[in-house]
Amino acid sequence: MSIITLTSDYGLRDHFVGALKGKILTEFAEAKIIDISHDIDPFNTVEAAYIVEAAYSSFPKGTVHLIGVDIEAGTDNRHIAMEWNGHFFVCADNGILSLLTDRFVPEKIVSINIHDRLPEGSADLDVFVTVACHIAKGGQLNVIGRETDKIKEVTELRPVVGSDNASIKGYVVYIDHFGNVVTNISRKLFNEVGKGRQYEIVLRESLNRFGLGTIRQIRNRYSDIVTSKNQNYDGEKLALFNEAGNLEIALYRSSRITGGASTLLGLGYRDAITINFL
Amino acid sequence: MSIITLTSDYGLRDHFVGALKGKILTEFAEAKIIDISHDIDPFNTVEAAYIVEAAYSSFPKGTVHLIGVDIEAGTDNRHIAMEWNGHFFVCADNGILSLLTDRFVPEKIVSINIHDRLPEGSADLDVFVTVACHIAKGGQLNVIGRETDKIKEVTELRPVVGSDNASIKGYVVYIDHFGNVVTNISRKLFNEVGKGRQYEIVLRESLNRFGLGTIRQIRNRYSDIVTSKNQNYDGEKLALFNEAGNLEIALYRSSRITGGASTLLGLGYRDAITINFL
Amino acid sequence: MSIITLTSDYGLRDHFVGALKGKILTEFAEAKIIDISHDIDPFNTVEAAYIVEAAYSSFPKGTVHLIGVDIEAGTDNRHIAMEWNGHFFVCADNGILSLLTDRFVPEKIVSINIHDRLPEGSADLDVFVTVACHIAKGGQLNVIGRETDKIKEVTELRPVVGSDNASIKGYVVYIDHFGNVVTNISRKLFNEVGKGRQYEIVLRESLNRFGLGTIRQIRNRYSDIVTSKNQNYDGEKLALFNEAGNLEIALYRSSRITGGASTLLGLGYRDAITINFL
Repeated sequence: MSIITLTSDYGLRDHFVGALKGKILTEFAEAKIIDISHDIDPFNTVEAAYIVEAAYSSFPKGTVHLIGVDIEAGTDNRHIAMEWNGHFFVCADNGILSLLTDRFVPEKIVSINIHDRLPEGSADLDVFVTVACHIAKGGQLNVIGRETDKIKEVTELRPVVGSDNASIKGYVVYIDHFGNVVTNISRKLFNEVGKGRQYEIVLRESLNRFGLGTIRQIRNRYSDIVTSKNQNYDGEKLALFNEAGNLEIALYRSSRITGGASTLLGLGYRDAITINFL
Repeated sequence: MSIITLTSDYGLRDHFVGALKGKILTEFAEAKIIDISHDIDPFNTVEAAYIVEAAYSSFPKGTVHLIGVDIEAGTDNRHIAMEWNGHFFVCADNGILSLLTDRFVPEKIVSINIHDRLPEGSADLDVFVTVACHIAKGGQLNVIGRETDKIKEVTELRPVVGSDNASIKGYVVYIDHFGNVVTNISRKLFNEVGKGRQYEIVLRESLNRFGLGTIRQIRNRYSDIVTSKNQNYDGEKLALFNEAGNLEIALYRSSRITGGASTLLGLGYRDAITINFL
Repeated sequence: MSIITLTSDYGLRDHFVGALKGKILTEFAEAKIIDISHDIDPFNTVEAAYIVEAAYSSFPKGTVHLIGVDIEAGTDNRHIAMEWNGHFFVCADNGILSLLTDRFVPEKIVSINIHDRLPEGSADLDVFVTVACHIAKGGQLNVIGRETDKIKEVTELRPVVGSDNASIKGYVVYIDHFGNVVTNISRKLFNEVGKGRQYEIVLRESLNRFGLGTIRQIRNRYSDIVTSKNQNYDGEKLALFNEAGNLEIALYRSSRITGGASTLLGLGYRDAITINFL
């Protein structure tokens, strides 16, 4: 009940993350603080939502996930706390939550209203710290906010299902450390639309003309591509549903030297990938 | 009483930071170790002093701050421990402390003298570990060093107040993760010299000719620049006193794509910025 | 007994390291998790072995070291756990262990065989987490694997002793954050072969022609090069046995601005360095 995870775009070079941890420990000395990532692309809520969704379920139920991305309370940016799938999330109402809750319905969302109760000169992050510590100590959401069910919806970059369920068009939402390309096409959506039909994944129309841009099989793990002991599969492209349940395009054992799928296939953030059912 | 923070130029790629934590835990299993930054520019004591000063007060009183920058004891580099503002600092006497104590008078400084008591082959960092653990356990400074009041003064890059208090000339001491430009002009100095007068901040004389290099208002937070809901302020330049109390030049919501204040305004480490009072 | 260290090539930008910690805390809430490095060059087992060897002995006996590099169980890649020098190591049998155990004989090695006991859909990393938590809780190796003494040997890049013990040819296994060049020539091997004779270290034959590529003294610490207070030694090249016991070529107080030994001497990963005994 006392784990607080941190996800932010603060980077690790500055003092911000250290100071944030100091503030948490000042308020709740027993907190167990775990970094998820502090290298979110600045203000990129799509990336933050993916990272948090991919990581949160590895933690015990009751964990509090603080998301420090684009948090300045402006004219239209509220702070919210949410209980969802047994976990708690504290973040700005900037679309992150609507991306997260796409697959599950949240148990409770509150609009944080303790800003006036904090000392003069408190920053937005101080609000987050107070709320996260309150919840990590076992406090109720209703004490720090008013219940709400309206959260900011994000409409761009959502996967689109073609007419007659003939296709799914999704988008690249993240390029990982190995250069693997993560899309927002979920295993759940794939199963619902595909219903077991054959399919081809078109990575890029332009590559397709040369027969290079298509994959016809989705693996369960990277090493499933290895079927013969006498062959070298390093650098071969493959598709799989990753641990977060997202369709991912990867090169087998890609490294900084060989280059990753993103570079070699020319796939970047926001690029489209289409699955055609046959 | 058992928090030890770490600031160094060791980077996170090598084993040094992990090994340092192992040594601390070997000596004091209950220590709560928190990283502030390990990406200080190598041997850059000005940067280290800024980062530590910006972070330390977010921690509870009694925290021990270990600063592993330029610590090799050479012919003229002593190791010192200091109590200051309720916190403890362990570092080399290489100027870092004189930068820190500019605003407050330290309660006690000792010159560490336990080097001979450690096992043969101990490195300078082992001395730091022993001292930090001693203090974190509640030990006295006098046990590990002899009281001193002379510390190495750093004179370069100090802010200069113009004749008749007509101006303050400060320097860029840090460029943060977002490209924001942090100067060593403190809110305290600004208030003492300015006494409420009007002012203009000149970023660069050369820009000034085109009317680009001047800011006439210092904000309290980034979002204070947003005064109308119907306007996009992204990328607009602004000045504010940051949480550490330093004058900072920033671009509103700057990102890796838009570029930060440092790049767009051409302001780098050691560049001068002048406030003229009118 | 409850420390688990992590070394991987996952990077800190993605969610992998955070998720790994969440899994560990879910299984063993009291675990004390310490990062050694997550920036190992992808799939580079030589680098991983060096980093782990350089760090492990700074931790208390009984610490569990989880090495997440190249861990996918393929046709010829087993998972193993080892007790060695009072520490525990969990990794893939991909050569890392043979590099580590070059200097000490392991107390016990088991081939992990619990894969079938984990829930359907468990990844290789889940196996590592279960094993590491089991050991950190004080569990026996025999419970999670079958004893073995055959581990995969790595033969490339091993130091070679010349005929008549006239020389040692070693290789660069790591370039550190400061640009220092770490070789796999150990102090132990140097002493055994050299037996107190005079020597010269040849960095590169091509440099040698100009009298630039030779060092005739191995220091005990960087600052031993400083013998006069009135001289500036910054940037001078030196050789020393580093804390891990490896021969290292460094430039005194090298920084990003001056450039490190690797850049200035043109020494990279896998390059050869020779010690000739005279």
